Amino acid sequence: MDQKAEALNRFRAAEEKSKAIAYATSILFWDASTGAPKSGAEARSRSIGTLSGFEYEMLVNDQMKQDLELLSEQLDTLEEIDRRRVINVKKAYDRLMKIPQDEYERFSALTSKSATIWEEAKEASDFERFKPYLEEIVGYLQKFTEYWEVKGNPYDAFIDQYEEGMTAEKLDVFFGTLKEMLVPLIQKVNQKKDSIDDSFLRRHYPTQDQAKLSVDMLDRIGYDRARGMFKESVHPFTMGVDIDDVRLTTHYYENDLRSALLSSVHEGGHALYEQNIDRSLQGTSLATGASLGIHESQSRLFENNLFKSRSFLSFYYPKVKETFEAQLSDVDFESFYAGLNRSVPSLIRTEADELTYCLHIMVRYEIEVGLLNSTLRVEDLPQIWKEKMASYLGVVPENDAEGVLQDVHWSEGMFGYFPTYAIGSALAAQLEHALRKEVDVDACLSRGDFAPIKAWLGEKVHRFGALKTPEEVVLYATGEPLNPRYYGAYLTKKYSELYGLD
Amino acid sequence: MDQKAEALNRFRAAEEKSKAIAYATSILFWDASTGAPKSGAEARSRSIGTLSGFEYEMLVNDQMKQDLELLSEQLDTLEEIDRRRVINVKKAYDRLMKIPQDEYERFSALTSKSATIWEEAKEASDFERFKPYLEEIVGYLQKFTEYWEVKGNPYDAFIDQYEEGMTAEKLDVFFGTLKEMLVPLIQKVNQKKDSIDDSFLRRHYPTQDQAKLSVDMLDRIGYDRARGMFKESVHPFTMGVDIDDVRLTTHYYENDLRSALLSSVHEGGHALYEQNIDRSLQGTSLATGASLGIHESQSRLFENNLFKSRSFLSFYYPKVKETFEAQLSDVDFESFYAGLNRSVPSLIRTEADELTYCLHIMVRYEIEVGLLNSTLRVEDLPQIWKEKMASYLGVVPENDAEGVLQDVHWSEGMFGYFPTYAIGSALAAQLEHALRKEVDVDACLSRGDFAPIKAWLGEKVHRFGALKTPEEVVLYATGEPLNPRYYGAYLTKKYSELYGLD
Repeated sequence: MDQKAEALNRFRAAEEKSKAIAYATSILFWDASTGAPKSGAEARSRSIGTLSGFEYEMLVNDQMKQDLELLSEQLDTLEEIDRRRVINVKKAYDRLMKIPQDEYERFSALTSKSATIWEEAKEASDFERFKPYLEEIVGYLQKFTEYWEVKGNPYDAFIDQYEEGMTAEKLDVFFGTLKEMLVPLIQKVNQKKDSIDDSFLRRHYPTQDQAKLSVDMLDRIGYDRARGMFKESVHPFTMGVDIDDVRLTTHYYENDLRSALLSSVHEGGHALYEQNIDRSLQGTSLATGASLGIHESQSRLFENNLFKSRSFLSFYYPKVKETFEAQLSDVDFESFYAGLNRSVPSLIRTEADELTYCLHIMVRYEIEVGLLNSTLRVEDLPQIWKEKMASYLGVVPENDAEGVLQDVHWSEGMFGYFPTYAIGSALAAQLEHALRKEVDVDACLSRGDFAPIKAWLGEKVHRFGALKTPEEVVLYATGEPLNPRYYGAYLTKKYSELYGLD
Repeated sequence: MDQKAEALNRFRAAEEKSKAIAYATSILFWDASTGAPKSGAEARSRSIGTLSGFEYEMLVNDQMKQDLELLSEQLDTLEEIDRRRVINVKKAYDRLMKIPQDEYERFSALTSKSATIWEEAKEASDFERFKPYLEEIVGYLQKFTEYWEVKGNPYDAFIDQYEEGMTAEKLDVFFGTLKEMLVPLIQKVNQKKDSIDDSFLRRHYPTQDQAKLSVDMLDRIGYDRARGMFKESVHPFTMGVDIDDVRLTTHYYENDLRSALLSSVHEGGHALYEQNIDRSLQGTSLATGASLGIHESQSRLFENNLFKSRSFLSFYYPKVKETFEAQLSDVDFESFYAGLNRSVPSLIRTEADELTYCLHIMVRYEIEVGLLNSTLRVEDLPQIWKEKMASYLGVVPENDAEGVLQDVHWSEGMFGYFPTYAIGSALAAQLEHALRKEVDVDACLSRGDFAPIKAWLGEKVHRFGALKTPEEVVLYATGEPLNPRYYGAYLTKKYSELYGLD
């Protein structure tokens, strides 16, 4: 066997082992989220710590370094799957190696500590307590970009981790377009916000009936329950540990018809993606989504564009009403459709509706870019937050807990993550547009038939897993790069009609 | 730091890491047994394979070899916990190292294959198919005992893995006593077997009501549900991944009142043990039972000696009857007590009652000893099986599936395992005898109060985990070595009374 073949074999084996360890870590997380006793947390974290150590050793060692160098020089001679795997691992490897190990360890210790501090600060609604930690985190991140010798905007190095190929320059255009299209629309909608009543959504809806509807929806969209599990957890999530083992959760609130059902459909969109990746990628690190944004496009497409559409609800509302006869006896279809889609600017991102959601992200994006480029100071964040919220959404938080402290991400050092949510929402609309060229979506939805939609997504998006870059996936599926105008147009049409705007 | 302290630190770290890996493997097993999709089996087995590899590397390497040698020379200078850990690991290490690696791998491959063959052979009730595999397995085991340079009976090397300090010589006496005391008793009971009717146990008992009783019983005996989980699985089991995370399962049959409830109490006995190990052992390999036999004594004590006792059932049967009012309306206390304790010699070990169970084990023990000592031939097993069953239990299997092929153990190379079941049953009676000297057991049970019993077991058995040897535990708790006469006497008294024997 020649040197290259040997290096490739070692590389594949190491990467598959690392995937096998990640499998165990995921199951431990699943276990913890779906009923494991709190008292076992310490034993679990000892185990996860040990497993991460092995995962690290598996990929970071001299042999791997040599193999990666040799394979990277011969990328063109590798098969597609191996090529992509080598590129990904080399990138992660270089990124890690360029940071002095002791510095990386101090950073890890800091983010672990600061997540706890953030929790306390949020509880007390006291940004001052979190401030020094966030300053230190930003300092580290800026230093990292020096080690990485980032050319251009330092932000690029962070967004690229979650959304390969994305840059601040592209995001400026992306958010600029959304701002231009959505801010005036939201203002108009906001003036008529009282024209829609959604109070019926907060009547009493027993958990078991909500669960029945959730399962029914998962079956409808084509989630294969035999190759997964569906349970309840505090925060809904999807976890694909293998193409043949894709699990998801929802969370039930007895006084909220919307939350669990929409979460189920949302997570179902993620799960469809993971279940329908091509089998040639099974067991490799490519058996996952192309990026967080692409993944999110699948969940948002099902949750917003499909489920909450007039076509689908015209089919499905009678079934919901059958389940909740007493609760919905006085609610006709138009009221239900309007209530479910009602838009009201609010303070909390995770509770935001489809129309206002991306502006919450924009606030965070602009702050992240400002901090990393030192054009904003951490100490000014509470004030800046208020100004941006007022300007984009017309609402202002009264305290830090419902303002700048509301999300955990920054305390964990996760910069560049937020935009993937907005990318997902926008891409969902772009995908819907492309889908409608080939499939009669309204006809399908109004008979409750997701099969042609699932098939189209499987062909255009799902099967590639992480074999293609996110940019390649978008181009292949829609014929053009990411374009937020579809999203702007989709929201304009939907909300103009809903609120009778001209 | 001196050499010894360094070796000790490395040893502790390695052992704790190995425990952390075992934690993950256990959770994967729990996940697989309590609802994970079958389709995910391959990904799971890849992960388990990788984890075992790490666990092996953690304990089997040159550094560990040196450290173990150094520490073993200075055992007397170590603290009790470290001393015991070093002794255990050194023993396992030597055992493994003395077998040439390629031979051990061939043996592992063989047992993995033969477990599948056994399944097919059992399905077809065809011992011939399994025979060559069992012959090969016995051949390997005999060879292993040569590598280990076993003095005396080769059987000792196998039972010692599960029950440290136990030997064939001691077991011959143990089973000899039981045979002498039980075979005539069983014959007498068998003559009156139709005097007790237990058909009411097979009426329709809805799962959810059975589950309520199971949970109620777990609460009563003192299992702390906040530090564990209770679920359903195909085969009931207990899994202590940590002192603060001890899980157990049962299995419900709608047409059997006995199975799930007794399994719950049985597993509850195991779980109490794991939950009440002293905290000084938490996270070490000693946070487990002293041996399989000691562990089984805890489950059998709760299942047989306590739950199925006249004292406890006089308290509990009214509660069972409240739950199953319609099903048990025509069953009075005496009938219930008798039905639950009815003894009928049967062919299948796992379905055997308290009185006949140990004789099933004796059959297996005698065959294992005969095979390892080459005084029996594999090809003669079906015939020998029938003869022994006829002689001890008065029943004869019509085919191999309900005879020699019924258990999986031998196909996995597990020789020396079976006797631990009998040791557990016998020890339960010996413990009950000792317990009664200090606690008024009947008074406790007849008011449904397990607290004093749990406290006694915690003090005498549970807290030591695997810090003491099984022999030390028995001596400490009962004041004498394992003595099967207590078991013989317990059964004689109980069954003489039940069947009106003189």
